[in-house]
Amino acid sequence: MLVYGRNVALEMLKNPKKVQKVILQQGFDDKKIISFVQDAKIPVLMKSKKEMDRLAEGLHQGIILYVRDYQYYTLEDVLKKNPTFIVMLDHIEDPHNFGAIIRTCEAAGVDAIIIPKDRQVQVNGTVMKTSVGTLEQMKIVQVSNLASTIDFLKENGFWVVGTALENSVDYRDVDYSGKIVLIIGNEGSGISKLVRKKCDFIAKIPMYGTTNSLNASVASGIMIYEVIRNRK
Amino acid sequence: MLVYGRNVALEMLKNPKKVQKVILQQGFDDKKIISFVQDAKIPVLMKSKKEMDRLAEGLHQGIILYVRDYQYYTLEDVLKKNPTFIVMLDHIEDPHNFGAIIRTCEAAGVDAIIIPKDRQVQVNGTVMKTSVGTLEQMKIVQVSNLASTIDFLKENGFWVVGTALENSVDYRDVDYSGKIVLIIGNEGSGISKLVRKKCDFIAKIPMYGTTNSLNASVASGIMIYEVIRNRK
Repeated sequence: MLVYGRNVALEMLKNPKKVQKVILQQGFDDKKIISFVQDAKIPVLMKSKKEMDRLAEGLHQGIILYVRDYQYYTLEDVLKKNPTFIVMLDHIEDPHNFGAIIRTCEAAGVDAIIIPKDRQVQVNGTVMKTSVGTLEQMKIVQVSNLASTIDFLKENGFWVVGTALENSVDYRDVDYSGKIVLIIGNEGSGISKLVRKKCDFIAKIPMYGTTNSLNASVASGIMIYEVIRNRK
Repeated sequence: MLVYGRNVALEMLKNPKKVQKVILQQGFDDKKIISFVQDAKIPVLMKSKKEMDRLAEGLHQGIILYVRDYQYYTLEDVLKKNPTFIVMLDHIEDPHNFGAIIRTCEAAGVDAIIIPKDRQVQVNGTVMKTSVGTLEQMKIVQVSNLASTIDFLKENGFWVVGTALENSVDYRDVDYSGKIVLIIGNEGSGISKLVRKKCDFIAKIPMYGTTNSLNASVASGIMIYEVIRNRK
């Protein structure tokens, strides 16, 4: 996985075992970063600005890191630890939203995040960046099929809570005391039909203005803290 | 103000009075957008990709719009309407955070947002884009000095709630029944010292993982919905 930019580089270099290789732009002169890289004995390559622009596809500020890919967990790994709160992402597309949701889940003590393998942003450099160091603490599971995963979780005693506006109850009126899977829908289209049918509760965050939706990571934050409200 | 990209263009063209001029890239062929522009009789300029890249400083997808600048409100305008809930941003830097906060405030029925004139992102094209059509519904006030503005609001019967980790109380234990100014701190450094001293309450959102902060727009969402929790 490629990550780039000076702030992320500094963050990553605190845990240098994850960093496989560093690419610096010819003439790169950030002494702090250079000394970190040298101390950690990480292999360094020097490249021209043009070559780096091609690699990074974004503002790299003269430094690109190759870091070990995120190692996904299996659902079995997660269930062994008796989880009580799982967040499932129903096709989130924006890496900034995914990163911010990881950060909130880690802060709130969510046991795991489940994502679909297709039509969902996977863990990439931008996700790592916006999760601000929490990614490595969070168990993320990739599954092929959300609907059958929900069935399996229900067999394991989970209650399934989705969020949507229609045919829903106020999010403050749902009983979150059991084992909960909270489902966060896509930024544009919300929760998919098949997943919605599997939900035990559909909760809505009330809106009092002209808009009928919140940013996906903001809505997730409100819902996640509501689930843990009476637990912790 | 410049905004660009096809989705934002479509959103803006729903309210064509705000759009002063449209710049299209030579060969632009999105028929839906072209017909919107023609129907609204907005002046159009054609430019080369190179010229457009220079104007937009971002992914413009062949369309740039000149839209009327946001018209800020004065504090006097806002106070005339007997507001009971104001959000104050203590130097938010990221336009995506500012946009998402505007969206949440509009959804939650917050009466106004106060921002400082300096070292704070102002309303720009990215803010407009991430506020997803809610900007025009939201009263935003620019002030020169947050501390003296807080004093003035206190004289007008407001209670001031800041968010921070140290010397704070659980956010669920604060009484939000009065007139509230909620202060959201900077992404990196939090609430500034002088502002903090003026707060009647410092609330914290409890964290159970390794991180000690949430994304600023996520934390704002949780706090804003907590303030209105027992009101609406």
